[in-house]
Formats: sequence, structure tokens, C-alpha cells
Amino acid sequence: MLSKAVVKYIKSLQIKKYRKQHQAFVVEGAKSVLELLQADFELEYVFLTEPFYRQHTSSLPQGLAFDVVTEEELVKAGSFSSNNAALAVARIRQLPPLQIKKEELVIALDDVRDPGNLGTIIRIADWYGIKSIVCSETCADFYNSKVISATMGSFTRVNVHYLNLAEWLQQHTKEFNIYGASLSGENLHAMALKPEGIVVLGNEANGIRPEIAAQVNQLIKIPSFGEAESLNVATATAIIIDNFRRHTQS
Amino acid sequence: MLSKAVVKYIKSLQIKKYRKQHQAFVVEGAKSVLELLQADFELEYVFLTEPFYRQHTSSLPQGLAFDVVTEEELVKAGSFSSNNAALAVARIRQLPPLQIKKEELVIALDDVRDPGNLGTIIRIADWYGIKSIVCSETCADFYNSKVISATMGSFTRVNVHYLNLAEWLQQHTKEFNIYGASLSGENLHAMALKPEGIVVLGNEANGIRPEIAAQVNQLIKIPSFGEAESLNVATATAIIIDNFRRHTQS
Repeated sequence: MLSKAVVKYIKSLQIKKYRKQHQAFVVEGAKSVLELLQADFELEYVFLTEPFYRQHTSSLPQGLAFDVVTEEELVKAGSFSSNNAALAVARIRQLPPLQIKKEELVIALDDVRDPGNLGTIIRIADWYGIKSIVCSETCADFYNSKVISATMGSFTRVNVHYLNLAEWLQQHTKEFNIYGASLSGENLHAMALKPEGIVVLGNEANGIRPEIAAQVNQLIKIPSFGEAESLNVATATAIIIDNFRRHTQS
Repeated sequence: MLSKAVVKYIKSLQIKKYRKQHQAFVVEGAKSVLELLQADFELEYVFLTEPFYRQHTSSLPQGLAFDVVTEEELVKAGSFSSNNAALAVARIRQLPPLQIKKEELVIALDDVRDPGNLGTIIRIADWYGIKSIVCSETCADFYNSKVISATMGSFTRVNVHYLNLAEWLQQHTKEFNIYGASLSGENLHAMALKPEGIVVLGNEANGIRPEIAAQVNQLIKIPSFGEAESLNVATATAIIIDNFRRHTQS
């Protein structure tokens, strides 16, 4: 049984202010909760439906504390319109200090506000073995439930750092190649790219802000063969990172 | 002023049955409506806010019939949570017969049910100059307002055909290379791909169904460098099509 107080607490974590105050966030759905339980997060609550528990008994960590609840209770507490599996509340964890190696590829996001896009980009980073994403402070919040859900579990493996992006890039212009996605950039297909450096992508509607663009060494463009004016920022990230990774052994 | 009857009519078009019955669909938001007005669609209603009208007077077609309404009226009639620009109702148009040229690249979708994914894939197709998408009958409906909205105007330029996909592929196995995205396919980065043929992508959770996979000549895989189990189907489409287009002059 989910008590009224707990439902209220979980609901409050839909709002960033309360996530910050309680240092906790919500994870919903089978895939995301299973990944959470395998990862190194401190758990406050784990709620599973009976069929989910039976199906996944063997993959649950030994000694896991959890409550069995109904599908209706999960929907009532969470943000999903249906959830026949699981919901958990985990503690926000301390990120390791951001340190980038010379041979690393990093994604930097300037003002990417859509939670679904940020979550999808985290999933893409995880697919391509990128460990760190750097975000301007105006990007969607990593712990937003739509972000967590769109990562499909990759939130457990990719570190997302929020900082003053213009300043941070300025500190790294000497050591790293800083690429910026832009409709006026160089054709990505014609470039010999090494999977090293920082790739900056901008806001869904407005692109990279001038103060960020000022720190970019090389503008790059996904060549267009048709008439669409632009691509979704998550789509663009995927294509660009794939181009950077083409010459890496998988 | 939007009358109650018109609001009711527009709302009914959120449901596929009524779109089919009335042979009409709804387009919302600045970018999508502007693209609609430039394209060859028969219009039933065009509603614009006064600021939108003033900003875009010069790009509106001559002799356009429209009503000026408030932002609140647009939100009330439409599906967006905010819309300070425009909403239109257009007639569903007759598709030209599906004919594929030897040197054409076509996207085939098997049971892609998420409207956002389908819309994003249409936008990707438009970016890469792909004119036709072929869908199994269980895919999201092209005229769903979430699909239309995610295309960002590309719905005016890409033809989406719904048909029995297994049968249709079977009719084309001799003439065309049929590629299928699969986690057990050949590494896309290691292949010499010509931008010709049919690329099949499957359902978000289950991949390509066996009866469809049976028609595929060549399974392909986006190489993985990290730990994510899969990519979103729209993300995967973008990466695969980009790989097919690498050797085409843009």
C-alpha cells in the first residue's frame, strides 16, 4: 500500500525545487527501475507490482527492500499514464569532479530545454561510450522524470554536469577542439574527424548563443539533401557523434 | 471568434475515426501552419492571432481566407498547451501512387507506434531528400496532430504510404536491396553503402517482426561503443540514413 503521505512526497518530486530540497528523484517503468537497481544509487522507496516482481525476481539485487503495490497505485503516484511494472525513489548522487581526458569526446549542450531531447541525448551518449555531458544551467534538469524516462536506463552511466558553459568552454579552448553544430558549418561528411574534443549543440529553436559560439573553433554542419530547415537537436547529436565515431573500433 | 461548433469539430479531428470521416486534419503552431499555407493543401479553416498575422503578413499567400482569434481560443480548440500563433484545418490529400525508382532510398517502418517518432522520422526523411516512407498499417497515423507537429512542416513534402508491409516488401525483393536495422546486423561503419534501396526499421520495443525480417536481404547494425541496449527508432533512422547518404553530393 502506498500511503497518502508517500504519494504526496513522490508527486512533489515532479518539481525541481522539491527534488533539490529532498535530494531525491523518481524513476518509473520496468527498464529504468531495473537499471537503477543494478546501479550505485541509494534508494528511498521501491514499489513493484506483483507480476513485475514475479517476472524479474532473479534479476533483483539480494536483500532489496521493496513494497508490492498495484498498477493503479503506481499511476496515481507517478507521472506515467500507465505503469504495470515499477517505481522507485532514489537519492541524487554526488557527481565526480568533471575531468576530461585529452582523447575523450564530450557533448556540451547550450540551452537544450526539452526534457525528451536531453534524455534521448543521454541515451545516445551511452550508446557511443561518452561518459560526460556538459550543460548550460538553462538546460532541462537531469532529474526531471521525462529526462530519466527518455534515457531508458542510461541515466545510471552518463554524468551530466551543469555549469556556466561560456566560461567553462573558455577554460578549455587551448587544450581541446571545440566543435559547434551550425547550419553554416563545414560539411561533416567531408571532414576527417577524430573522436576527441567537445561538440556543442544549441537550443532547439535558436541554435548556439553568440557567447558560446565565440568559444567554438570549428563549426560543423550535417549536409542536407532535401528541404527540411533543420533537424531535432537529439537527432543532430546522434548523427554528429556517429560521424565522430566512424573511425573508432567498436 | 471560434464558434462552439467549430471548436467541437476541430477537437473531433484529434480522433482518427473522425479524421477519416471528415477527410480533414489539424495543423498547429507557427512553423507548421506557415509550411501548410505554402503547400498544395485545400484549407477548411485558418485561425491566426493578431501578432502572428502582423509578423507574417508578407509570407501569407495572396487571397488567403482566415479568422483572427486569440491565443486562448487556439489553445481551447487545439492540442497544444500553448499556441500564440496559428491553427488550421486542411483536407487530407490523395497520395500519388507509390512508385519507386531504382536509384531511390526509401524508409519502411514496421509497427512504429509512437507519433513523435514517426513525425521525427518524416523530418529526417525530408532533410535527407527521401520522398517516400512506407508504413505497416499498425504504425502511428500520419494525420495525428503529434505526428504533424513533430515533422516541423516536413509533412508537406514527404509521402507516407500505409500498406501490408510484408506483402509489399515481398513484391520488391528482386528489384531492391532491402536492409533491416537489427542489433545482430553487420556493422554499418564497415559497409560500402549506396543510397539506394529500402531501409526497414522496427517497433520501438520489439524490433522488426519475423514476417518482415524474412523479406530483408541484409541486416545492418549501428556499432555500439558503450552500454545502452538500444537507440530510439527515430535516432537509429537518422544515423542509418546519414550513413547511406555519406557518399552522395549534397
